[in-house]
Amino acid sequence: MNFSNFGQKFTNKSGILQLMDDLGQAMSGDSDMLMLGGGNPGHIPEVQRIFRERMQRILADNNSFEKMIGNYDPPQGDLAFTTALADLLRELFDWDIHPENIALTLGSQSSFFTLFKLFSGEYSDGKKKKILFPLVPEYIGYSDLGLTNNAFIAQRPSIEHIDDHTFKYHIDFDALEITDEIGAICVSRPTNPTGNVLTDKEIQHLMSLSKQHQIPLIIDNAYGLPFPNIIFSEVESVWNDNTILCMSLSKLGLPGTRTGIVIANPKVIEAITGSNAVFNLATSGLGPQLTLDLVKSGDIISLSKQLIKPYYQQKAEQAINHLSASLDGYDYHLHKAEGALFLWLWLRNLPINSNELYNRIKDRGVLVVSGHYFFPGLNGDWQHTRECIRITYSQEDDTVKRGLEIIAEEVKRAYDVV
Amino acid sequence: MNFSNFGQKFTNKSGILQLMDDLGQAMSGDSDMLMLGGGNPGHIPEVQRIFRERMQRILADNNSFEKMIGNYDPPQGDLAFTTALADLLRELFDWDIHPENIALTLGSQSSFFTLFKLFSGEYSDGKKKKILFPLVPEYIGYSDLGLTNNAFIAQRPSIEHIDDHTFKYHIDFDALEITDEIGAICVSRPTNPTGNVLTDKEIQHLMSLSKQHQIPLIIDNAYGLPFPNIIFSEVESVWNDNTILCMSLSKLGLPGTRTGIVIANPKVIEAITGSNAVFNLATSGLGPQLTLDLVKSGDIISLSKQLIKPYYQQKAEQAINHLSASLDGYDYHLHKAEGALFLWLWLRNLPINSNELYNRIKDRGVLVVSGHYFFPGLNGDWQHTRECIRITYSQEDDTVKRGLEIIAEEVKRAYDVV
Repeated sequence: MNFSNFGQKFTNKSGILQLMDDLGQAMSGDSDMLMLGGGNPGHIPEVQRIFRERMQRILADNNSFEKMIGNYDPPQGDLAFTTALADLLRELFDWDIHPENIALTLGSQSSFFTLFKLFSGEYSDGKKKKILFPLVPEYIGYSDLGLTNNAFIAQRPSIEHIDDHTFKYHIDFDALEITDEIGAICVSRPTNPTGNVLTDKEIQHLMSLSKQHQIPLIIDNAYGLPFPNIIFSEVESVWNDNTILCMSLSKLGLPGTRTGIVIANPKVIEAITGSNAVFNLATSGLGPQLTLDLVKSGDIISLSKQLIKPYYQQKAEQAINHLSASLDGYDYHLHKAEGALFLWLWLRNLPINSNELYNRIKDRGVLVVSGHYFFPGLNGDWQHTRECIRITYSQEDDTVKRGLEIIAEEVKRAYDVV
Repeated sequence: MNFSNFGQKFTNKSGILQLMDDLGQAMSGDSDMLMLGGGNPGHIPEVQRIFRERMQRILADNNSFEKMIGNYDPPQGDLAFTTALADLLRELFDWDIHPENIALTLGSQSSFFTLFKLFSGEYSDGKKKKILFPLVPEYIGYSDLGLTNNAFIAQRPSIEHIDDHTFKYHIDFDALEITDEIGAICVSRPTNPTGNVLTDKEIQHLMSLSKQHQIPLIIDNAYGLPFPNIIFSEVESVWNDNTILCMSLSKLGLPGTRTGIVIANPKVIEAITGSNAVFNLATSGLGPQLTLDLVKSGDIISLSKQLIKPYYQQKAEQAINHLSASLDGYDYHLHKAEGALFLWLWLRNLPINSNELYNRIKDRGVLVVSGHYFFPGLNGDWQHTRECIRITYSQEDDTVKRGLEIIAEEVKRAYDVV
């Protein structure tokens, strides 16, 4: 049995698939691995209670449960949910958003598959275009979505040293070139893996550049405002006709429901809807049904602010304190934790590369992710890409603490050898 | 904002997307349309009660509900479910099936997207290959999955006239050519849209041809054995290392959970798993959780046999009786109803084409699907493709009856004009 070139990509277990295997096995439950590698949101009891009560109400309400499981949702997603969400966004931000500006998908990864296909590859004039990441590190999950090898182009960031052990990436606008081979600009905010939150000024600059070049600005808002609000700095939420804002119910605590949300102009929504119909037939009603009341009442905003954000902010602070205490005296740099679930640890001039460090840490029973996976589309050699690791702090405090201790030991051992 | 060629395909509302719009609007609930066009399974109260009770047990069982909604499932799908299913299939059919032979997907449509990509398009030797449908009519949902325009090749069937008004399609093996441009053979059994069930002899012949040419035989078993068992003829279930058997929980009554199942050799399962990881990140745990007990106990087999199959078989017989009585004296031919949810009505020498008939019926408030959509990959002109419509009989008896009366009126009006 022979596979197409596409198929071979998925049968040769290399790179990202090997990594996913590692993560999958660690999550399978039989493993004793300390999981500081994945992106599973924490289980927040107060939030879980809300979803449990909602499911009980669905079961109690006539045949709501039967409709939820027994009917195909339309490919644009549940209309009651998209209507309620449009109402909420209009009220919160005064954006001109209506149900025709919103499509649901089977998860944010699926949204990005479609969006990258919509704005890269061959155009009607015969030109081939790419997605521009104006700042890397960027989300590992984008890497293989391009289907072709040349779907992305990326640019190195500038680095601001905030103090001896804290830094922040910025977009290097002076070097940023938007040629006619760019089909769309894409950023995540907060950024997975670094926790970076692009400043309002950076976002305004990107919006004006994308408008000027008549290409969309795609913002991956999976951790952002107004929900789940895992964002620790004060920034503005933006949207306009030329912006494609992607959200998700996963980090609200519902990764099992596979619910992605795309907010864009009606033409883009139409394309997402068509793509859903052709590739997935239908979206799932579970996520929309479990959260409809919360969106209608606006409680989704208060629970994000009062339960979800503080939960992660406290975990971030604890993790930073642990790691800083353990690595005192070493040339380590943590990206300023502005949001999401991760610490991004830069080990300047580490004598071994980050993948070797990943393996040593894994041998000690802790999973992190080597930073070199997070530079999709970057050309040219840059030592920095081999000096970083991503550490998830969303799991139980004790797991995170034990994991960080082992990480610190291995980091110090690597530095000390020289 | 400009779209890639891929994007343009999904923003020009033509053909299948227009049709999906029609179907979507009719299902939205505000419409008075009689829905004899879609593929939504019927709501069978006894079956729904089983799922409702299972959800209540999940809620009662410690933190099972919290895990179901709050954790990412692995990209191969829930291991407890695939293990239980492998056990069941080994016991039922004596197939050599283990968990590494099973992957879950976000619905059968998603399975076919991946499978068609795995076995069509460019190969490492530079050759471009296609998926062969040895018999059309075939499932409308395959049509746009190829991404390119030349992903499929199909062959006309031979037609057996069983009686004056009943016929059955067969594979025309004499004409069937399997060149080296074929990457895989694909059939659905029972077939959507016709209700055809390929005979055991036909399937054996396809299995031997595919083995001989070292290409996989993909069988879309969404309506078949051992569940949901919407199959009214006595046939054997088959699987071997060279066969890729696709199943689904949708027609069991769970389309909202988006659960597809692929049963194949471990190499194919690895590729499906990788594709899930890259394009969807994770599968959904809802469907596996709702049916795990049923698979473990084997009750999924008995409920399919005792509740689901008779429900549809009775509806099929009623629909055939209604339509036959109404069309008596006309040159109509119904495909032998051997399974699935549809009547396939062939109106020989109808003075108008099937799309015009679709529109006239739609104007009268009834939705069916014009047959011309169901010939993906067929080259050359064949009048038969414009003489058929697909009628869904899965909805409430009264809806189906009223719909069939209007369809018969419009058919007779079209014949009578000449």
